[in-house]
Amino acid sequence: MPPMLCLQKAAVLQMMSDMQNTAAGFDLRGYLKQQQERINRRLAALLDCNRIQTRLCAAMKHCLMAPGKRLRPVLCIAAAEAVTEIADETVLEAGCAIEMIHAYSLIHDDLPAMDNDVLRRGQPTCHVKFDEATAILAGDALLTLAFQTLAGCARFQETNTCLILEAVSLITRCAGYEGMVEGQMQDMAAEGQSLGLDPLKQMHALKTGALISASVSCGALLSGADEQQKTALLSYAENIGLAFQVTDDILNVKGNPERMGKAAGTDQARAKSTYPALMGLERAGEYAKDLVGNALQSIGIFGNTAAPLAAIATYIIERDR
Amino acid sequence: MPPMLCLQKAAVLQMMSDMQNTAAGFDLRGYLKQQQERINRRLAALLDCNRIQTRLCAAMKHCLMAPGKRLRPVLCIAAAEAVTEIADETVLEAGCAIEMIHAYSLIHDDLPAMDNDVLRRGQPTCHVKFDEATAILAGDALLTLAFQTLAGCARFQETNTCLILEAVSLITRCAGYEGMVEGQMQDMAAEGQSLGLDPLKQMHALKTGALISASVSCGALLSGADEQQKTALLSYAENIGLAFQVTDDILNVKGNPERMGKAAGTDQARAKSTYPALMGLERAGEYAKDLVGNALQSIGIFGNTAAPLAAIATYIIERDR
Repeated sequence: MPPMLCLQKAAVLQMMSDMQNTAAGFDLRGYLKQQQERINRRLAALLDCNRIQTRLCAAMKHCLMAPGKRLRPVLCIAAAEAVTEIADETVLEAGCAIEMIHAYSLIHDDLPAMDNDVLRRGQPTCHVKFDEATAILAGDALLTLAFQTLAGCARFQETNTCLILEAVSLITRCAGYEGMVEGQMQDMAAEGQSLGLDPLKQMHALKTGALISASVSCGALLSGADEQQKTALLSYAENIGLAFQVTDDILNVKGNPERMGKAAGTDQARAKSTYPALMGLERAGEYAKDLVGNALQSIGIFGNTAAPLAAIATYIIERDR
Repeated sequence: MPPMLCLQKAAVLQMMSDMQNTAAGFDLRGYLKQQQERINRRLAALLDCNRIQTRLCAAMKHCLMAPGKRLRPVLCIAAAEAVTEIADETVLEAGCAIEMIHAYSLIHDDLPAMDNDVLRRGQPTCHVKFDEATAILAGDALLTLAFQTLAGCARFQETNTCLILEAVSLITRCAGYEGMVEGQMQDMAAEGQSLGLDPLKQMHALKTGALISASVSCGALLSGADEQQKTALLSYAENIGLAFQVTDDILNVKGNPERMGKAAGTDQARAKSTYPALMGLERAGEYAKDLVGNALQSIGIFGNTAAPLAAIATYIIERDR
């Protein structure tokens, strides 16, 4: 290897190692707790369940307010913080809108016509707790509320309405027929079939990756990131999105159902293609680590303001649920 | 009655009669054909089915491009024309977005867990033609595409981004948990129960009225209507929305299934509360006529530019499907 390339490679490795240290020194538990509380308060206010006490709102609340990691809004906020050190109200609101889209997708994915799941986040799924029609409509209403929430950002003084419309555009592209919804179609079509590694990655890039990318990119967009910063954050998002899915598959094999709040071993029972099934459990674990390494490298340009993002990337493969 | 009130009443009746004449002299058939072609071309382009040939897009196309009256986008355009004589690209785009929301709501309403309908617009419903999971996802994707379409309006030169966000806000309020989705919940809950006239009206105001109001109000908003014009158009929309539903119920009793493209007599078979059942067929017909009279009266302030709106109001109770 020519000396110049050696130096470049050494610099990149140094950057990754720096970000690893940054992540290790960061109080992620405290940060997550603080952000999750902020997000949960805002979600409850946006849902407005105290004013409206219909069965529909009860179903929306059951799903949206169930204990969750709030990974997507946290990523949206952390991405904005990497760029500008603080995340304003618009960023929080956009993160909450994406969480609503995530919640609607879980309700519809759990339906009898799809994955037919009965347990989610340690609670009965929406169609079990309520009924199938209510679950379909609660999902529809949450998806609609997500865009109501984004449009509502126009009320903030600091708001650039062009950026909000760009955020709507970005989120719809990631969540719709070229993104998450198509990913679920591909997941349904793959059931009972043996999928190769590339089609599996493509399916996950759409099904879960697209909305994770939307979360990070939305934070970047709304905080006025430049093109280099946007590219770095998108690369981070794509890597952790895949790492998240690989880890989910690993947890499905060896996880503790009580900690996870859902059943384990279900993928194997359904003959689903998974990373552990295709690569072996050990190599799947290494693959997830490599992906997180790539993610850390991507955000090296931000330095300390990216500490939350770096710590989240590390957490993704170390979590037990 | 004091002479002043008599004069006011006479003026109002004169205005209504003027609008009736305006409607009678208007070539609605030609107008609808022209607008429907324009709307269908735009919907096909927005759906982008030539580029993307997935099963999901085929299902979305099956439902969105099925022959339909395109009442909602036509109303959006006609409302804008009442205000400014012409409807620009943003108004057309907003109308198409509302048609996508209408199409998604039909797909989900037809599902086995809801109305379990097999025929719609003369074609098999989405879950019959494809499958239940695909139908749920095609609905989700159409709802998402509606907001992608609205956000895309930012590319038009004439665009006021604040107004587009206001349109998103308006549409989501009418389509979501306080509007159309709640209306479908109430409709499901009412099945097999005998509903009084007021709860029936309230349910329809949400289930079908809200999106019709959104169509008209969106056209008004995007064409820069003032408060008086907005109020007049909203009153028009609320009256024709209810007239539309009353006529739907009447057609369900005495309509021709082949012309309607769906089965007749289904409401009675399901013991659904309807206007003919509650008021008698004849009085229901008179009620629809009164509502259209109110609608015509509301838009008297516009004069000739409201000719399309006036003709549509008259058409709503004269149609046979």
